[in-house]
Amino acid sequence: DPFLKVFTLNSNPDLAQEIAENIGTELGKCSVKTFSDGEIQINIEESIRGCDVYVIQSTSDPVNDHLMELLIMIDALKRASAKTINVVIPYYGYARQDRKARSREPITSKLVANLLMTAGATRLITLDLHAPQIQGFFDVPVDQLLGVTILSEYFSKKGIDDPVIVSPDHGGVTRARKMADLLKAPIAIIDKRRPKPNVSEVMNIVGNIEGKTAILVDDIVDTAGTITLAANALVENGAKEVYACGTHPVLSGPAIERVQNSKIKELVVTNSIPLPESKKIDKVTQLSVGPLISEAITRVHELRSVSDLFE
Amino acid sequence: DPFLKVFTLNSNPDLAQEIAENIGTELGKCSVKTFSDGEIQINIEESIRGCDVYVIQSTSDPVNDHLMELLIMIDALKRASAKTINVVIPYYGYARQDRKARSREPITSKLVANLLMTAGATRLITLDLHAPQIQGFFDVPVDQLLGVTILSEYFSKKGIDDPVIVSPDHGGVTRARKMADLLKAPIAIIDKRRPKPNVSEVMNIVGNIEGKTAILVDDIVDTAGTITLAANALVENGAKEVYACGTHPVLSGPAIERVQNSKIKELVVTNSIPLPESKKIDKVTQLSVGPLISEAITRVHELRSVSDLFE
Ligand SMILES: Nc1ncnc2c1ncn2[C@@H]1O[C@H](COP(=O)(O)O)[C@@H](O)[C@H]1O
Ligand SMILES: Nc1ncnc2c1ncn2[C@@H]1O[C@H](COP(=O)(O)O)[C@@H](O)[C@H]1O
Repeated sequence: DPFLKVFTLNSNPDLAQEIAENIGTELGKCSVKTFSDGEIQINIEESIRGCDVYVIQSTSDPVNDHLMELLIMIDALKRASAKTINVVIPYYGYARQDRKARSREPITSKLVANLLMTAGATRLITLDLHAPQIQGFFDVPVDQLLGVTILSEYFSKKGIDDPVIVSPDHGGVTRARKMADLLKAPIAIIDKRRPKPNVSEVMNIVGNIEGKTAILVDDIVDTAGTITLAANALVENGAKEVYACGTHPVLSGPAIERVQNSKIKELVVTNSIPLPESKKIDKVTQLSVGPLISEAITRVHELRSVSDLFE
Repeated sequence: DPFLKVFTLNSNPDLAQEIAENIGTELGKCSVKTFSDGEIQINIEESIRGCDVYVIQSTSDPVNDHLMELLIMIDALKRASAKTINVVIPYYGYARQDRKARSREPITSKLVANLLMTAGATRLITLDLHAPQIQGFFDVPVDQLLGVTILSEYFSKKGIDDPVIVSPDHGGVTRARKMADLLKAPIAIIDKRRPKPNVSEVMNIVGNIEGKTAILVDDIVDTAGTITLAANALVENGAKEVYACGTHPVLSGPAIERVQNSKIKELVVTNSIPLPESKKIDKVTQLSVGPLISEAITRVHELRSVSDLFE
């Protein structure tokens, strides 16, 4: 279809290439450079008049540069008469700033939603928003795909004996329940509690993990503090082995060192954020979200339902 | 006035401090940090409910980080019930992307204007926009101050003998005319022309510079290519000495080396962008826009006219 165009910016060029190939098209031609003072310069090098355009870009580190690239690209597409501008953001940055936790804090996820719409985005396709409520920050359609489908499939093929799906905190129980359904396994929850202020947290495990293979599941693995402490607690409390998985491998600061030194046997993530060489260690397995996103784009373009991609 | 608050972000802390002192207040308390994945975290640490807030921030290099800091701050102020949010952007970045020079280019200056308004800015105070038309990109009041007032005063005090004000290109003639009025001097123009494609430019000088002291004036001094070539052409054509001045010292890439090796005797700029130590060379003089901006803020706050600050 000559009216379907896929463009990539600088965050996920390999994923974008894979998506274009799956869809049976070539990546749209455009140049994204930086002037010597650090300002971004974008030029779209083929006509996109009347086209449905899909732009692949995660707002991963360096988040502000990736976001501005995306906003400037949307502006250029709008002025070049694109019919629809569908932004595909596999990893939606600033998602943890989604509410006023204290007085006088910003709600940066909502700000980012407003910026994308102001620039001219007409649809968002994304993966595992930190909070599903972020969908409501947009006044244009949002399709949220779920990483657990890909992660579950991996563990299902691997054939884990007597698994239990573990949420590392209260906030992630819905995600663990979903994965447990897919793997027909029970769930457990790490129930962190601070007995008194300024006393260190106690990790209590709700559910039966004794002698089982625990699979910890989270959405974002950032500094990996939560997940590595949880893994160690699970082993101490009698789990046979511990796997961990998460959709978005932010892996900042001490993350890789922590994973390396933890009781985690394998950490399974997706390529919503590409891993630099320095983060590609044996313990980390990266699965592609290319097939899932390609399928979503094809269906959106053909006006077919995507709802079963969320299941 | 307890309802007037001045905040600084990371681009111009010294200038902001100077402005707060001039106005007779203290800088507002707020913390601006970065999480380990590069996301900006802002928290305003004093009540600003019902206040007129002025936020000082240039969108200078690193432009995307400085812009996001400003947008997130505006979002936080808005949600904390500020009465008005006045953004003071001494150097407005992305100003040179102010039109479609080729097909399918973005108009990033307009995008930035929309982003600032979407975040919640209710007024812009700025200095020498690259094109005055950028004022029209805003649907909120814009007060544009002029750097030539400060630059002219410096040369006037210095006492230049038989000066001629030179515009380095056609686009800057209005600015040169203004400075010539202030210094009661004649003007000249560097008239660049490319006789044939792929042949190097010819620099023709329109106006009498023979034996005079030339003062080149521009708005942005970026890589300093334009201004150093112009200076050399002026000396070759009989100027006695050449001074140069510009409001915004972007000074990226080879700029400092070029200025150092050029025929320019002294380059006079403002602190709309602070200079790192590596750019503080003897030939460069930096003047403060603090008094001008403080006066503008005071007048805006007291609902007095600022029009004579542009003259
Ligand atoms: N980029 C980030 N890195 C680390 N912590 C963050 C980041 N963004 C937000 N937070 C904090 O994470 C908390 C929200 O996480 P959660 O409770 O899991 O939704 C808030 O207290 C935020 O201040
Ligand atoms: N940050 C920048 N650094 C260098 N050149 C730029 C920058 N932003 C825009 N330009 C180019 O400068 C030209 C506009 O400058 P002007 O003709 O002086 O208004 C356009 O051709 C832009 O492509």
